[in-house]
Amino acid sequence: MTEVYIAGVGQTKFGELWDRSLRDLMAESGISALGDAGMEKDSIGGIFVGNMSAGRYVGQEHLGALAADSLGIHAEASRYEGACASGSIAFRNAIHAIKSGHMDAALVIGVEKMTDVRTPEAVMTLAAAGDQEWESSIGLTFASLYALIARRHMHEYGTTREQMAMVSVINHGNAVGNKYAQFQNPITVGDVMNSSVISSPLNVLDCSPITDGAAALVVVSEKMKNKIERPVKVLGSGQASDTLALHDRQSLTEIQATKLAARKALDQAGLKITDINFAEVHDCFSINEIIAIEDLNFCRKGEGGKFVERGGVSLNGSVPVNTTGGLKAIGHPVGATGVRQIADITRQLRGDSHNQLKGVKYGMNLNIGGSGATAVVNILGVDE
Amino acid sequence: MTEVYIAGVGQTKFGELWDRSLRDLMAESGISALGDAGMEKDSIGGIFVGNMSAGRYVGQEHLGALAADSLGIHAEASRYEGACASGSIAFRNAIHAIKSGHMDAALVIGVEKMTDVRTPEAVMTLAAAGDQEWESSIGLTFASLYALIARRHMHEYGTTREQMAMVSVINHGNAVGNKYAQFQNPITVGDVMNSSVISSPLNVLDCSPITDGAAALVVVSEKMKNKIERPVKVLGSGQASDTLALHDRQSLTEIQATKLAARKALDQAGLKITDINFAEVHDCFSINEIIAIEDLNFCRKGEGGKFVERGGVSLNGSVPVNTTGGLKAIGHPVGATGVRQIADITRQLRGDSHNQLKGVKYGMNLNIGGSGATAVVNILGVDE
Repeated sequence: MTEVYIAGVGQTKFGELWDRSLRDLMAESGISALGDAGMEKDSIGGIFVGNMSAGRYVGQEHLGALAADSLGIHAEASRYEGACASGSIAFRNAIHAIKSGHMDAALVIGVEKMTDVRTPEAVMTLAAAGDQEWESSIGLTFASLYALIARRHMHEYGTTREQMAMVSVINHGNAVGNKYAQFQNPITVGDVMNSSVISSPLNVLDCSPITDGAAALVVVSEKMKNKIERPVKVLGSGQASDTLALHDRQSLTEIQATKLAARKALDQAGLKITDINFAEVHDCFSINEIIAIEDLNFCRKGEGGKFVERGGVSLNGSVPVNTTGGLKAIGHPVGATGVRQIADITRQLRGDSHNQLKGVKYGMNLNIGGSGATAVVNILGVDE
Repeated sequence: MTEVYIAGVGQTKFGELWDRSLRDLMAESGISALGDAGMEKDSIGGIFVGNMSAGRYVGQEHLGALAADSLGIHAEASRYEGACASGSIAFRNAIHAIKSGHMDAALVIGVEKMTDVRTPEAVMTLAAAGDQEWESSIGLTFASLYALIARRHMHEYGTTREQMAMVSVINHGNAVGNKYAQFQNPITVGDVMNSSVISSPLNVLDCSPITDGAAALVVVSEKMKNKIERPVKVLGSGQASDTLALHDRQSLTEIQATKLAARKALDQAGLKITDINFAEVHDCFSINEIIAIEDLNFCRKGEGGKFVERGGVSLNGSVPVNTTGGLKAIGHPVGATGVRQIADITRQLRGDSHNQLKGVKYGMNLNIGGSGATAVVNILGVDE
């Protein structure tokens, strides 16, 4: 079984990109990843597109073919979906395709174009990541689901509004100077606390924004590795599921799928969680970064808020998290996020990242779909 | 690298299923496939859902998680999309996951629930399989794209309306008595010729219907094979892409992606096209079955119409095609179709099919996305 490597990464700016189409975004990120890898498009054996809802946002399904078309590639091309985890799912299936021997090089593109519709439609489309029959049909938006989770976390563990606000403050701080980020401005805890209520206790600055953007990866087998200047190794990958609706879960304050996915990825990598030097986690809402670091065991259950407050996830903390700005500040074009996370981890491990960390060897991403019905964890490492 | 086998198949009735939800359809087909395989759900390592547009048809994305939820499985679960080829793409990715050693058993579910919206919305949703910027936005529906193709085929090769009508007549004939089929009534060439025009030269009886339904497969590795009573072997699988928009193609009368996908699948299986005993091909419109049998080389280019007329694709013909009714008569719940095709091939090879063929050893499916931007070909064989 071959090992798998990241050969190159690419990305568009994230933001409100009204002058560019879905096709443009996929082409730009794909070409940029191929350029970064120093590879020609003819070497690509398959295209893996992560996207949640182009059918509703843009009136376009069949995104694999659109990507292949826009890049002039006739190789197989498909779209992969698992709500907000779509990007990581595309990446994971590319790993399988390479390990199965079906191809030696894959292009993974994550993309979402969310600002071509009005905000209420964008919000209802996002709600399709939850349970249509039991949640969205009775008016539960995506923010409301996480608001329920946040309330319960505050109740069970004494997590404070200020601690949640700190997540957004740190991630905005990390995005200052990140040329790809939708928001590059620092904010304060006061800004978050005084911003408009979206779904109490979550204010607008607790929420990741609605964003257009694409990110891409070139993923290769051992056979291609020698042609690559700065390969980063894929050490482990895990994915798991939980109930779609919140009401079916035993606990609102932990995401079982995260725990299962992380265990699989760590076992595959032969690593312990304490080996991980930094992480990209799914801060779609501030509370979710707190729950993520707890479920990944970077801190104990219930202590995520305090861990953030003490600086545990800051750039100089014990586990720097979302070092380039996270979903909150870089933006969250849903299908692109997982791919962007892996691109950012790759850059940190190669040594050419925004907010470059020193001496890092292992990085992990956690990409969550919906309110936690899907979780994907990938572990990358310096190639030694 | 392990070989891959079909361990069990399942299916709901196809039709207008207003009394059942998307969740119900997935659960019913999944449980039925597990029962057919004689396997417990705990043995499933991953769920692969093929679906084109539940976001628009039902307001539900995140179908992998919905399937896992409905079956009470916590294994990884994702959705795979390539327009009308979504089902075969889900199957193909399950093959990769098993061959890569990541799992030993996968549940593949293809599903679409299309009749919960009004017909114009269903038609516009289907048009999202074509090119949104260059085709659907200017009013080209899916039927119109194939009408352009049909006109050109008639012009270049003298294919007649009657020959196209014969495709529908044969497929309706094959569906008589198929308990899963949406339409089980025989029709005549006159019926087709006199039915309402949808997009000239295609009449309503040249078109596959709008359908609800789900189909499922249990796919396993060598390791699990001994536990299975009647395994069918996956011999080859190929997928390829072409331009999304028709106007970018060199020819309107052939689908390049079909040729590329078939070559890959045949090479992998170590077979020639003349070895294939029967096929399930993508008769979304009558003209497409004619083009499919030409592109697969069951007959020469341009002679598909005559081949149908001479009975070449009939049950007693040289290559029986769509022996259980095809998309036309069984129905075409888009994401389910590729999976249903593979289920039907499996039944023929095991010997428990509707219209059972005698002495068949190798069967092939061709599942096409959009107007041919995606094609997937799979070859199954009797396990020897």
